[in-house]
Formats: sequence, structure tokens, C-alpha cells
Amino acid sequence: METTYEKLVQECKRLDRLGSIGGFLAWDERVFMPPQSGDLRGEQNAALAELVHRETVRPEIGKWIDELEGQWEALSRPQQAVVRDARRDYDKRTRLPAAFVARKTKARTASYQAWVRARREDDFPVFLPYLEEQLELAKEEAGYLDASDPYDYWVDDFDPGMNAGIIEPIFRELQPRLKEIVETILADPDQPDKTALRGFDVGAQERFLKEVVRDLGFDFERGRIDSTVHPFCGGHGRDIRMTTRYDPDNPLDSLSSAMHEAGHAMYEQGLPDAFAGTALGSAVGMAVHESQSRLWENQVGRSREFWSYYEPKYRAAFPEPLRSFSSEELFRAINQVALTPIRVDADEVTYNLHILLRFELEKALFDGSLKPAELPEAWNAASARIIGYTPKNNAEGCLQDLHWCEGLFGYFPSYCLGNLLAAQLWYRILEDLPGLPEQIAAADFQPLLQWLRTHVHQRGRLTYTNDFAREVTGAELSPAALVRYLRERYLSLYSPS
Amino acid sequence: METTYEKLVQECKRLDRLGSIGGFLAWDERVFMPPQSGDLRGEQNAALAELVHRETVRPEIGKWIDELEGQWEALSRPQQAVVRDARRDYDKRTRLPAAFVARKTKARTASYQAWVRARREDDFPVFLPYLEEQLELAKEEAGYLDASDPYDYWVDDFDPGMNAGIIEPIFRELQPRLKEIVETILADPDQPDKTALRGFDVGAQERFLKEVVRDLGFDFERGRIDSTVHPFCGGHGRDIRMTTRYDPDNPLDSLSSAMHEAGHAMYEQGLPDAFAGTALGSAVGMAVHESQSRLWENQVGRSREFWSYYEPKYRAAFPEPLRSFSSEELFRAINQVALTPIRVDADEVTYNLHILLRFELEKALFDGSLKPAELPEAWNAASARIIGYTPKNNAEGCLQDLHWCEGLFGYFPSYCLGNLLAAQLWYRILEDLPGLPEQIAAADFQPLLQWLRTHVHQRGRLTYTNDFAREVTGAELSPAALVRYLRERYLSLYSPS
Repeated sequence: METTYEKLVQECKRLDRLGSIGGFLAWDERVFMPPQSGDLRGEQNAALAELVHRETVRPEIGKWIDELEGQWEALSRPQQAVVRDARRDYDKRTRLPAAFVARKTKARTASYQAWVRARREDDFPVFLPYLEEQLELAKEEAGYLDASDPYDYWVDDFDPGMNAGIIEPIFRELQPRLKEIVETILADPDQPDKTALRGFDVGAQERFLKEVVRDLGFDFERGRIDSTVHPFCGGHGRDIRMTTRYDPDNPLDSLSSAMHEAGHAMYEQGLPDAFAGTALGSAVGMAVHESQSRLWENQVGRSREFWSYYEPKYRAAFPEPLRSFSSEELFRAINQVALTPIRVDADEVTYNLHILLRFELEKALFDGSLKPAELPEAWNAASARIIGYTPKNNAEGCLQDLHWCEGLFGYFPSYCLGNLLAAQLWYRILEDLPGLPEQIAAADFQPLLQWLRTHVHQRGRLTYTNDFAREVTGAELSPAALVRYLRERYLSLYSPS
Repeated sequence: METTYEKLVQECKRLDRLGSIGGFLAWDERVFMPPQSGDLRGEQNAALAELVHRETVRPEIGKWIDELEGQWEALSRPQQAVVRDARRDYDKRTRLPAAFVARKTKARTASYQAWVRARREDDFPVFLPYLEEQLELAKEEAGYLDASDPYDYWVDDFDPGMNAGIIEPIFRELQPRLKEIVETILADPDQPDKTALRGFDVGAQERFLKEVVRDLGFDFERGRIDSTVHPFCGGHGRDIRMTTRYDPDNPLDSLSSAMHEAGHAMYEQGLPDAFAGTALGSAVGMAVHESQSRLWENQVGRSREFWSYYEPKYRAAFPEPLRSFSSEELFRAINQVALTPIRVDADEVTYNLHILLRFELEKALFDGSLKPAELPEAWNAASARIIGYTPKNNAEGCLQDLHWCEGLFGYFPSYCLGNLLAAQLWYRILEDLPGLPEQIAAADFQPLLQWLRTHVHQRGRLTYTNDFAREVTGAELSPAALVRYLRERYLSLYSPS
């Protein structure tokens, strides 16, 4: 006789299968769909989403959750996690009125189109009413869920358990320490120049990075890599579809973005499929997800050990374009730091400053101390203060990101929290695996991947982000590890004359 | 106020969108899915199919159909076609017990596995119980639909309105006339040899055939071509996914199979999307579908006019491998005829004999005059009599096709009916477009495609196959046009010495 708990887990798995179909359609849309087939795809998505939504709000599911909440003390800790998130998901699905969801979907499409035009024409006023609308919709949605603070609702949406009150002191402490590192680096008169890396055959780039991610442990039997303008990792843990992009004159980009997406992919591949669709089969949140991508991209992929193994192979794949680069020049190019107005082009040090800027402005937009109309000016001032760069126009300022135009408020902090977590994990792992540097230098990534499988992937979302940090890394979320890591990596490479 | 008819049409379109999602998953499964992701895909398919099935059997749809049938005389002819097929589809969905559908699905998987093993090991007894089961299931299904004859039920399933009583005299007349043509061809001591076409670069083959199908009128804005082991045409009219396969030593195969699939694809691309999911937005049936693929592959693609335009381009793409071939040798290789045991390898003349063989045996299996256990012997005898070739084993005999193992009885005749229709259409089109040969010689396929759009594609399934033949080609279905076409094409190329 199937227990209520088992019924719930089975149903979550069925909903996972159904939900993942939309993920494949989205992958196909960005990778292989013919140019004029978007109208059909939109209709398929809408018809499917309606059907799947109807399945997820079945009253029977609510009854199972009620019943299990009534026996809370009799549940094991993993079972409690499943019921806790089933409740969380069910409430989010059932409390939003259908008319609101339809309004939001429609508004998002219009907002996206306005944002594209505003960015292209550097015309913020075109986007302003849509930004205001997105902000109102975000607050309205938080209201349906009885959120005590609308901004916290959204932070929690991407990183369960997180809120601005936790993030704020961490970011406040991080900012001056990052700034100090950046200033030291930039004071070095001998700056590397990765733009001199030119003419890298795209086919050879593809072969090289596929070999690398295979070495890392990405399972090509249950996943693939294709090419897109904006790299992403989609699909499902049992069938991961990741993408990268190739530029003959920016070869490090395809490689590091592939290692980044492979980090996301291997997390998904490591989640326990028996619990798919429940807390125990899900990623903790965006921050932990980002910790996985960043750890492989940065802690591993920018290390001396990694390059001591791959440099000869890299040179064999690209003998001509690398001829004039010494080993040290190549390694410094890989770890180049530069002030850039654009977040997605930023290196791993300054990237965090871009996030601090966005967090400050998001909070102000939500608490009303910043009006949307004042955003361009506030952005430029904050950019000058935090990053040290004043955007020349809004396209490289407040219009550069897609997030707010799509109503994704509260998402940005996850990127920086992920960097903090990656560094905390790194030092924790080094305690368990003191031989890790030598293993990386031998391209033996299995011990690292196995550690992550055991301590991170297989755990699913047993706990939320803060408890994850405490239980898995052994420390509260804090800037300490990231600052230590950045100082160790960069201050040995750069010295003010 | 939306009328009941409009509601039905809208609902059919929604079901078309939902149904087409499974088609994309099937395409992806055969083209891009990672090797070990089949288990997830199976679960996605099952969860989706159950959901979509539930939508298609909603009682409300049945009530709409009842209501519209009650006002039959007030409906226009196109409206009657929509209601007629809505009834047909709805009955097929609602009358099959869920337990039967589940049993059938399970049996099909087991049957497929047994067939694969039996074919590999040339061990018919392994497959026999599964063949018997498939036959029983096919009869049982016909019973749920109150079919007067189970074999006719299946013929009608693939070609609405068709039955064995119509097909039998046509095939009986066709057989000796085909045999006569084949004997004349094979009596020519100077037989072409297309196996001498070797070493055709696969990349150049792909570029060449994409140029050809683009010239024909395949819309790459709403479709694409990829590579698979077994070419097929899937997806949806608004987003066609067709495939082909490449062999450096069999270059005509990729080209003719691409033209074949492009014929299917352009039919789908030409169906009126406003009526998607209804009779007016659907292909008539398999025979008319096959007439479209065969017309482009054979009537167009094997013609002197076609090759007068493309031969110089073909030689430019493959100068080396074609050096020792004269124009006439190439053209005769394109129109080579040979006795082969395998249907899918057969040329356009002998192909029909393979179908006559299968039709005779299928009918006998259904009327009980042939026991499944007797199939190998009966197959070999019929093959010797009809095709003139005795299979050396069951793998090149009665185990060669997938169809019966998957319960697809009554499907084979469509292939030959499609060839008959292609020829009938061809002579009908030549009456309207006397300049067609010159247009083809100039690679101007627009007049032909437009004719098909107007008279075939846009018509949808206004009528069933027999009325289609009468109304569109101006003649009853008969062997006359195909025999005329084959004689015109082949008897000028081959002469008994």
C-alpha cells in the first residue's frame, strides 16, 4: 500500500517529466528551431503550459501536503524537506490568480520588445513605463503570497531562505576588500592582453573544449553541447543540453563558458533522479548552482595546475596563434582583470562589483527610495563609485541586462553568493582532498567530482542556502573565502611597481 | 458569439499544437538525443501522451460533434468534412478501452525487441508468437470500432475510404504489366552500374542536396534538414524537420531520399494552418502523402530535364568521382532497375512488386488462409513468383520490414497507391502546365509547386483518396498512368538487344 508520502514523491516525478518537456522546447528554440517557426512554438508552449499547470494545482496534491504536515514530527528530515518544498511550490502555483499570470505573461513580452528597442536606440524613456509595470507586477505577486517584504520574496524565490537582511552586511564587507584587490592589480604597469589571442580555428576550439569537459566528468551519454549566441545549460539532469559560443579572436571565452556550463550540467547530472521534482532531487537554488559553475570555471579552470596539464595540448591544437605567447603570458591572459562597463564581459574579480551595484539599486527600487525614472543617473553614479567606471550611455549602463525587463528582480545577488560559496567549498574540499592540486595537474578530476557528488549533488535541496553553507562548507556565508582566494590567485600575478 | 463549428475548429487547432509536441520529441530522439537519455524520453512521452489523450476525449467535443451532425444539411461541404473526420477521430479515441491501449503499447515494445533479435539471428520462431499477438490485437482493435472487416479497418486507417476490394483489382491489373516492363529492362545486356559512383564527399553532398530542395521550394525558414540512419520527415507543417543520410559510395541515395522527404515536407508546409487538426488542415492519407514525395523524387528527380540543369552543377561539386561517367551513363545509373530482395533498396519500378507481395500476404493473414507460422515459406514462394527473386534467408525475406512487428497492417498498399497517384497527377498537371518540362530544365519549380499548393495541399482532406483521385486527377485510381509513365521513362533507356 502506497503511503501518502510515496504518492507525493511519485506525483512530483511525473510533474518533473511533464515540466521538462517545456525545457526541451526552449532548448530547441534557441539552438535548432527554424527562424520563422517561433509563432508555432509560442502556441505549443502556451497549450502545454496550461495543461501542465492544471496538473500541478490538483486539489489532491494539496490534501496530501495537508495530511503530511499534520504528521510533521513523524517525518524524517529528508521527508520534511520534500513536504516543505511541495508546500512552497503548491502555494506559489495555486495562489496566483490565472488572470494575473496571463497579465504578467503578456506584459513580459511587451517589456522585452521595449527593452530591445530602448537598448538599441539608447532611449531609456521608451523602456521606463515597462520597467515601472514590471516592478508593480513583482510587488503584486509578492502580495498574493503574503510576503512581508516584496524584495525579499524575490530573493527567496531564487535562493530559498535568503533575504536582503542576510546579503546586505556580507556585500558591505566584501566591497572595500574587492576594491582593494582590483586597485592592486590595476596598479601593475605590466598588464596582460588577451585580445592578442587571435585566429583560433573554431572547429579546433570545439574539439578542445569537448575533450576538457569530458575530462572534467560531463557525461556525454546523457548530454550534449551545441552552439548558441548566449551560452546556457538546459534540458534535464538525465539529458543535459548545454551550449557555448565560438569566436576565433576570443578563444578563452568558449572554453571558460563551456567549463562554466559544464559545472551547472554536472550538478544537474548528479541530482538523485529518484526524487526528481521534489526538494531532494532539486538544486538548492541559484547561488549553489552558480557555485558549481564558478568552481569549475574559476577555481579549477584558471589555476596553474589546470594549465600545466592543458597548455601543451592547447599549443598542439593552436600552434600558430600561440607561438608568440610565453607560458606566463598565456596564464596571465587567462587571469586578466579589467574594468568593463558590461557585467557579462567582466573577469571573476570585478564581476562581483557589478552585482553589488545591481543589489543596491534593486533594493532602492523596491523600497521606493529610487524612482524608476531616476535609474539611469543612479546607475551611472553607482557604477563610478562601486566599479570605478562611468558608462558612456544607457546601453552600457542600466539597459545592459535582460533581467529587470523580464521581471527577474532579486536574481542578481545569486551570482555573487555563488562566487562566495565556490570559494568556501574550495577551501573545504582542499581539507578533505589535500592532493587536489596535484590531481588537477594530472587532469584527474574524479576525486573532486566525487566529493561534489557526495556532499553537494546527491544532497539535493535538503536544506536551503544558508544551512547548506554551514553544513557543507563548515562556515556561515561570508566574504572571507572569496577574498582569500582572489588574493592568493591574483596578488601573486600582479604587483604594483 | 462563437458557433459550435468555430469552437470545434479552435479545439482541433489546440489539439494539433499539443499533439505536435510529441512529434518534436520523436524527432529529437532520432536526431540529437544523447544515447543514454532514452529512459527519460520514454517517461516524458508517456506522461505527455496520457495528458493529451485526456484532452482529446473530453465529452464536450463529443457533444459539439453530435450537435453539428444534427444540422448536417445546413453545413457547407468543407464543414461536413471537418465534422466527418472529427467524428472519425473522436470515435477512435473514445472507443478503445484504456486497458487495451496500454496492453497494445506494451506488446509493441516486446514485439519490436523480438523482431530485432529474430532478424539479427535469422530466427523466425522467436518472432512468431509476437506476430500472432500483433495480428490478434489488430483484429481486436477493429472490433471496438465495429469494423465489418478487420483488414479493411486498417487499410482505411491509413487511407480513409480505401479498402481491399478497391485495391485488389487495381493491383491484379498492375502486376503483369509491371512484370513485362521489368523483363524488358533486364533483357538489355548493357545494364548501368551505379555502384561505380564512389568517393562523393559527404559535406559536398549535403550542400548540393540543400541547394536542390531549396530550389524545389522547401521553406528553410520553417524547416530544416539533419542527418539520420533512417531518413524521415517529422515535426509540423509550420516547423518541418526532415532528415537524410549520406554515404560517399552511394551518392544518389541521399539526393533522392532528400527529394522524397522534401515532397512530404512541402505537402505539410502547404496545408492550411488555420484548419490545423481538422480534415481541412490534414493530409488526405498516406497514399496522397506518398504521391507528393514520389512525384518530386521520381517524375521530377529522375527526368532528363532535371538532370540537364543539375548535371553541370553535380559535376562541379564532384569533378573527380564523375570524371569517368558520361552524361548518358550517369542518367542511366540514376534510372537503374534491379531485382533486390529488400523493399527499401528497390528502384521505382520493382518497388511496386514488393508492395503487391505484401498486400497479398497481409490479406491472407487476416482472412485466415495463411497462418503466421507459414509466413516464411509463403513469403519466399510469393517473392519468387511476383518479384522473381527468392530470399536467401528471412532477414531478406519476411523479417525485413518493421511494419507488422509494430502492428502496422494495411499500411503497405499506400506506397503503391502513392505511385499510382503520382503518375496520375503528373499527366493531369502536364495538361495544365504544358511548359513544365522546359520549366524543370530551367530549375523553375514554382509553377509545379503552385499547382500542387492550389489543387492538392490547400485542399487538405476535403475528400478521401478515391474522390481525391477523381476530382483532382480527373480519373479513377488505376494502373494506367503509372504504366504509361514507367514505359515512357524506361523503355527509351533500355532495349533488349
